[in-house]
Amino acid sequence: MTQRKSFGSDNHAGVHPAVLQAIVDANAGDAVAYGADERTGHATAALREVFGADEAFLVMNGSGANVLGLSLLLRRHEAVICAETAHINTDECGSAERLTGTKLLAVPSPDGKITPDLIAERLSGRGDDHRSQPGVVAVTQSTEHGTCYTLAELRKITDFCHASDLRVFLDGARLANAAASLDCSLAELAECADVLSFGGTKNGAMGAEALIVMSPGLAADVPYLRKQQTQLTSKMRFVAAQFAALLHDDLWRANAAHANAMARRLADGAVAVDGVDVVYPVQANAVFARLHPRHIAALQREGFFHTWDERDSVVRWMTAFDTTEADVDAFLATVRATASG
Amino acid sequence: MTQRKSFGSDNHAGVHPAVLQAIVDANAGDAVAYGADERTGHATAALREVFGADEAFLVMNGSGANVLGLSLLLRRHEAVICAETAHINTDECGSAERLTGTKLLAVPSPDGKITPDLIAERLSGRGDDHRSQPGVVAVTQSTEHGTCYTLAELRKITDFCHASDLRVFLDGARLANAAASLDCSLAELAECADVLSFGGTKNGAMGAEALIVMSPGLAADVPYLRKQQTQLTSKMRFVAAQFAALLHDDLWRANAAHANAMARRLADGAVAVDGVDVVYPVQANAVFARLHPRHIAALQREGFFHTWDERDSVVRWMTAFDTTEADVDAFLATVRATASG
Amino acid sequence: MTQRKSFGSDNHAGVHPAVLQAIVDANAGDAVAYGADERTGHATAALREVFGADEAFLVMNGSGANVLGLSLLLRRHEAVICAETAHINTDECGSAERLTGTKLLAVPSPDGKITPDLIAERLSGRGDDHRSQPGVVAVTQSTEHGTCYTLAELRKITDFCHASDLRVFLDGARLANAAASLDCSLAELAECADVLSFGGTKNGAMGAEALIVMSPGLAADVPYLRKQQTQLTSKMRFVAAQFAALLHDDLWRANAAHANAMARRLADGAVAVDGVDVVYPVQANAVFARLHPRHIAALQREGFFHTWDERDSVVRWMTAFDTTEADVDAFLATVRATASG
Amino acid sequence: MTQRKSFGSDNHAGVHPAVLQAIVDANAGDAVAYGADERTGHATAALREVFGADEAFLVMNGSGANVLGLSLLLRRHEAVICAETAHINTDECGSAERLTGTKLLAVPSPDGKITPDLIAERLSGRGDDHRSQPGVVAVTQSTEHGTCYTLAELRKITDFCHASDLRVFLDGARLANAAASLDCSLAELAECADVLSFGGTKNGAMGAEALIVMSPGLAADVPYLRKQQTQLTSKMRFVAAQFAALLHDDLWRANAAHANAMARRLADGAVAVDGVDVVYPVQANAVFARLHPRHIAALQREGFFHTWDERDSVVRWMTAFDTTEADVDAFLATVRATASG
Repeated sequence: MTQRKSFGSDNHAGVHPAVLQAIVDANAGDAVAYGADERTGHATAALREVFGADEAFLVMNGSGANVLGLSLLLRRHEAVICAETAHINTDECGSAERLTGTKLLAVPSPDGKITPDLIAERLSGRGDDHRSQPGVVAVTQSTEHGTCYTLAELRKITDFCHASDLRVFLDGARLANAAASLDCSLAELAECADVLSFGGTKNGAMGAEALIVMSPGLAADVPYLRKQQTQLTSKMRFVAAQFAALLHDDLWRANAAHANAMARRLADGAVAVDGVDVVYPVQANAVFARLHPRHIAALQREGFFHTWDERDSVVRWMTAFDTTEADVDAFLATVRATASG
Repeated sequence: MTQRKSFGSDNHAGVHPAVLQAIVDANAGDAVAYGADERTGHATAALREVFGADEAFLVMNGSGANVLGLSLLLRRHEAVICAETAHINTDECGSAERLTGTKLLAVPSPDGKITPDLIAERLSGRGDDHRSQPGVVAVTQSTEHGTCYTLAELRKITDFCHASDLRVFLDGARLANAAASLDCSLAELAECADVLSFGGTKNGAMGAEALIVMSPGLAADVPYLRKQQTQLTSKMRFVAAQFAALLHDDLWRANAAHANAMARRLADGAVAVDGVDVVYPVQANAVFARLHPRHIAALQREGFFHTWDERDSVVRWMTAFDTTEADVDAFLATVRATASG
Repeated sequence: MTQRKSFGSDNHAGVHPAVLQAIVDANAGDAVAYGADERTGHATAALREVFGADEAFLVMNGSGANVLGLSLLLRRHEAVICAETAHINTDECGSAERLTGTKLLAVPSPDGKITPDLIAERLSGRGDDHRSQPGVVAVTQSTEHGTCYTLAELRKITDFCHASDLRVFLDGARLANAAASLDCSLAELAECADVLSFGGTKNGAMGAEALIVMSPGLAADVPYLRKQQTQLTSKMRFVAAQFAALLHDDLWRANAAHANAMARRLADGAVAVDGVDVVYPVQANAVFARLHPRHIAALQREGFFHTWDERDSVVRWMTAFDTTEADVDAFLATVRATASG
Repeated sequence: MTQRKSFGSDNHAGVHPAVLQAIVDANAGDAVAYGADERTGHATAALREVFGADEAFLVMNGSGANVLGLSLLLRRHEAVICAETAHINTDECGSAERLTGTKLLAVPSPDGKITPDLIAERLSGRGDDHRSQPGVVAVTQSTEHGTCYTLAELRKITDFCHASDLRVFLDGARLANAAASLDCSLAELAECADVLSFGGTKNGAMGAEALIVMSPGLAADVPYLRKQQTQLTSKMRFVAAQFAALLHDDLWRANAAHANAMARRLADGAVAVDGVDVVYPVQANAVFARLHPRHIAALQREGFFHTWDERDSVVRWMTAFDTTEADVDAFLATVRATASG
């Protein structure tokens, strides 16, 4: 019996063959450590170009990129406004608070999206030294709910923030999925942020994230902050190789578009099943479905995936660059079998 | 013309073929993320066994292991005693202070080794709430000067520390080189610490370090601290694979012993050159040599290596698992040519 | 025309004459600094006795006591559960996050009170290294809404917490008001906490708060944490003198009972006014009233007080140890005049 | 028998009568809390004027002023250069590291004074992301050794720092003693710093320090940093009153000049005693004397003072605003008696 494809997380997938080959190819001779090698130079130059960025830096994982980006944008006393469901608020064990000392001012956001109105509500204590002072707004694209901000939505947020002395950090752990979904360039997305992360790991890399600095004057402190935050890897050529492979012929987009299409196929199949609802628009590589608790339990016996909201009986299914149509169809068959069970 | 072997750092080397193959082999199908996969289970079990440890955890780099280990051992208000030359004091951009808020109480140590007497001098302010309160002693094995503590020296430190309500953290970024040099087991070294790191990266891995917890009762907090400190990697199977390869047939020891032997060969050749002194005992994979500043400059034009102490005209040469006798001899030829130039 | 009594804050009041006299009396000759003087010894002994405490420490203000108390109770990676309206969450500019790195897990609490059920909801992610791990529950007594937990309610919280491996911190900036309101001893309240603060400043002191450590084994670290958190005052005899005066003949209780009675009188008078509602039970020295926005604006022209909830048109009026019946009646007259205006 | 005057610390002294009277006078009616009252407005205006400062803020103690000042001047990743003997390095339990995460780069300084040359030595790692990056130089005036920088020395430091992209923080816990010793204005001293503290507590106040911000553009963040660092006192009028009294008719200078004169008298008397050496120039209110260990022990039985350097058999004697000539002469008589014993 073959191993079934996991719909538990895009982190369950392995490494795209082209990325793995690039890692293997990078293992030739010596290379200066800590990012002073040629491969890192080329990869960061390529990232700068594709994002229209001031500077790009390689780090090792998404939490590292998030904390580094926030620490770069925050004045020492400032707080961060984010969605209640934001990864930095719910999934990083309080890393932002621990490493930067900032307070997260979470706003409710039914579909994972923050808006100027929601941000504005958190600004009421400005200038009062008893209240936390927001300095940064963190948005996630695509969101933790598998939705995407349109470019227009993002621009409205950015315009509001910049008019309100707030800087914008964009958590782009799944930025590729958003760019594929919106059929836009990475530069168009990046224009809406002062600093953003660009995730490779969930899109076919082994462990590679980039911090993209858009606003001039910010990049100078990054090397020291990255080192202090233990995100400077010594043999950086192997991280660089991963980005080189992902950027080559826009492999990042092909991977993301495929994962998105598989999520779409999964959602379309799921809504056709009696007793299954899809609860958020499927705009990236995640499907959030409501099932009867008994069906959830039965399905999870077949393979791990997260129960997202136990009270509301909602689960999360993720697709990846290597999910096949056959994987989706086999999973849907199980869903149907379970739901009718 | 072929590329010359770097003597600048053991981080300039690539990945050992067996480690790379293990990474490639690990890229089969899905695996649960964040360390709940089988490969990670096997690798940490193997580490526990070889170290006689309570628990073992995989992290991404040496600074990460150091900060994690210290944070685990320190009470909230406590300080760390270490050698002035310790990596945590001089080479991590102040990461320990930044991420844990601790103060490093550095003691001078001519050969990179700390002693009970040096530690005792830093204990004079105990019980005085104006003075920093040492709670942990950090030792590095092999040291930043390429020397090794004997097991007897380490045990004296540990006995002194435990009798003085101090915990021992051992920075083992190059622990393999020490074990090879002392011809002892990793467990014998680990017995002298409450928590230690075990470096893979400088010994043929791509990016893999382990945190080894010896003292019972400490391990429970590690997963949360690791996550907060952004050292939890999602596709952990690829880190696990590196340790599996290094532990297989004691590849770690073969790599380290070879690097040590090459350093020995380099040192033996270097002392035979007029105008070159080797300033520390060569007990691991580093050679510290004093040359005329003019010769240093000439040599560095041939290939990068660190000037360790500009005032004293001392440089550092490192060997790695893949340094060959021919590499050493070619380098020595250049040293001789330069020194007579 | 005489200055009107402020109903803006119990911090607007000055110092009780007996407290001021004690400060004056303390200014005789030299005294050893930093708390090693006799006056501090006597005051902390008295606090230990009245609270049945393991140890007592003097600090300078309420935020200092809160951060010190939390830092004492939290393991390095842990988070704090508190009411959304808790002072530490809304009124200290993010001090707890900044100085301890902890995350506050706020729960909604309509009347400012937290319950075991509300706490339990925040425990769902325990054991998952992606989720913040609660280690401490912070309760405020009397609450920020002027309500008091009954002893039974507090005990239920404590029992639940201790059964759930959670420690209890009690923010007692207005603990005196609660003890007076419940007609109980300070020791009965303190039994419900592992560590608590006891506020002097809002109850007739100039600037004096105490940290009361109930659970054995915790006190040893306090002197160092207090010093690091800059809450160790050099001429501590003057803080000690304030507590000596407040404890003498239970002046603290008389002050608090009087303030409570004045709040009761104010509330009774206010509810009799058309267009004025009192929105929380008046169990301490605060009255929360709903008025028409126009009346609020008119009243605030007569003297400063906080608009608590602009959307809901609710204001906060505070009484103090020196509020007189005449002050209350004069204020009520203005309320009536404004409301009918 | 009357109590003998302490030479242990200027913190052992009480409060100057004029300062105490100002506190008593401030206890009239209500006052808005947290510094929005008139007294605070006047006191900070007076401080701004006497220092020629951009802004002045009141805090509660010296450690608080130091941490606040450093946090204001440091970029997030930066380190602080200071003398090994600096109060922030040796006497605050590691508060600067704990609360700001900075690393202190201590330089040896035989007489407690730092110089451009000593600073320059700590700049060698600039631009290398493995090395701590100094951003601030902290100087203490008068120093922890009772010496004073001349204005020329201070200006040389400031010029060097500003030319080297370093900001200057001046720990002025005993700035009054320096101004009195140098017969210069506070403004002349303040010109040499970007931010400084001005100590009241050791010079006749009860507990009052000021943070003086000289460089424009820095003051805006202070209120939030002060609140987060728990240095915002609610009944600030009583701190303001202390500064008002100290500034009135330059009481601060009279107090300091008197203490300095008493130290001079003590030193002059001490050097005349066989077996007693005074080891640093006596330029403020401290005398550092070398005595035979047996004499130290005998003298300490008569009254507490610090053994400064046990190995070198050096003690510290401090004078205060209220030390009388008779106190000095009585102490000298004991010194003589002990030394001949």
